[in-house]
Amino acid sequence: MTRALTAPAAESAERVALVNGVPQATVSVFDRGLQYGDGLFETLRCEQGRVRWFDRHLARLSAGCARLGLPVPDGELLRREAESVLGGSPRALVKLVLTRGVAKARGYRPTGDERPTRIVTRHPWPEASGQEFRLGLSPVPLACNRLLAGLKHLNRLEQVLAQRAAASAGVDEVLMCCGGGEVVSGSMSNLFLVQGGTLLTPPLLQCGVAGVLRSLVLELAPRLGFAVAVAPLSPQQLAQAPALLVTNVRLGVQAVHWYEGRRLEIDARGARLQELIENAER
Amino acid sequence: MTRALTAPAAESAERVALVNGVPQATVSVFDRGLQYGDGLFETLRCEQGRVRWFDRHLARLSAGCARLGLPVPDGELLRREAESVLGGSPRALVKLVLTRGVAKARGYRPTGDERPTRIVTRHPWPEASGQEFRLGLSPVPLACNRLLAGLKHLNRLEQVLAQRAAASAGVDEVLMCCGGGEVVSGSMSNLFLVQGGTLLTPPLLQCGVAGVLRSLVLELAPRLGFAVAVAPLSPQQLAQAPALLVTNVRLGVQAVHWYEGRRLEIDARGARLQELIENAER
Repeated sequence: MTRALTAPAAESAERVALVNGVPQATVSVFDRGLQYGDGLFETLRCEQGRVRWFDRHLARLSAGCARLGLPVPDGELLRREAESVLGGSPRALVKLVLTRGVAKARGYRPTGDERPTRIVTRHPWPEASGQEFRLGLSPVPLACNRLLAGLKHLNRLEQVLAQRAAASAGVDEVLMCCGGGEVVSGSMSNLFLVQGGTLLTPPLLQCGVAGVLRSLVLELAPRLGFAVAVAPLSPQQLAQAPALLVTNVRLGVQAVHWYEGRRLEIDARGARLQELIENAER
Repeated sequence: MTRALTAPAAESAERVALVNGVPQATVSVFDRGLQYGDGLFETLRCEQGRVRWFDRHLARLSAGCARLGLPVPDGELLRREAESVLGGSPRALVKLVLTRGVAKARGYRPTGDERPTRIVTRHPWPEASGQEFRLGLSPVPLACNRLLAGLKHLNRLEQVLAQRAAASAGVDEVLMCCGGGEVVSGSMSNLFLVQGGTLLTPPLLQCGVAGVLRSLVLELAPRLGFAVAVAPLSPQQLAQAPALLVTNVRLGVQAVHWYEGRRLEIDARGARLQELIENAER
């Protein structure tokens, strides 16, 4: 059983792409993004012609560039390009991929002369399924590498494998554990455990993606009286959690109805948090 | 100081590419190979119009397909395509990239309806530098994920970071350690420690690539009187190793002259092993 929230949509007809500012939908086969996953991406929510929370996306992208040794891109250019592909869509997702560019030589070692490739694509906003949100625990581990932790880089095979298994299991999303056994995040979302007045979310020092929505929750949840804590979470804690939230820019703050087949409580403050974040300017 | 063996060559003019059998040098920006590194590759040595050790490459590629849930490609078609791009080159490298194909929907989850993309590119054989081979120890760790271990998949950011650092350090290649601290392999090669009559190479159950040359060494070295053993190696063992070999299809069996600035012994059996492997039919 697949759920509508993650079900494939026939998008091809509605896809729009820019490569380095030029309307085209292809890149060189020698691009290091394809050859090695040598690059980064951001998934932007666009509403009423504007990118939401753009400064946070740019901050993460810039941190990633510093880590990978890519030149930091011109933020205003990226914003303009993202907004330029929207056409009249009132709401859409824009994916921004930034690679090290076309390889100047064979092999992993960059020459340092590469010119980054900037790919901006528009994707239709997925219809909400209206169905309850099902979360599972993935058998696919997340590998630990502090040098890549937190980044939204292009090496995403683990997430692909996790989502393949999630589809077979009939769940919308799956939690993934690091080698040490602790729960890190969902395959495409960050995780918050609601425990009384506290929101707990795992640290991302060894793996995982530092989500834009996660940073918004950490900042704004205290306004609703929540304490927020970044703390390791074990699968055992998850198995007993009263309520869970997962976050990403598409889902916003998503209450989890089912975790590993167990019905969870829906904390009313989740909806208030969602509202607070939906209204956050930056 | 960069070494000629890994120095960038101006290859663009000599590059030749086939995508799904068609001469072209671009792929869709929506290809999952670019979007997620959702695919595999092989680097083939071609000599006198033929791919060397093709069955071993195909076996690894097929194992990777099984692991990622990709249809196993037609080996004869791949071989023919690889050989067709050679033109008159007496010796060349052919890189074969196989991705899950163009995404049918946004997001990590494959629909299952994707059609794989097959990319075959020719690269000039790099000139040997004639210089001594320098090996270092990388500060970049290799993340552990048993589900991806051994495969030559497209998620290669760790190797890119390691080779960037190697260039700064002025070495040809660097050894990489897993999170547990054990040495796994080079960034682009497998490792053998020569200890008296024994060749030791690390296991690849948690990370690393199961190299075609590594498998040849494991099979053929006993003919020279070597015992071969797959065993964990610590950085301390490496620091005291009398002699080291690194292997890949480009380098063959490469004796290491310097490791972390220390001059190593050159075991004459390394050259005999190289010769044995150069002559191996399959």
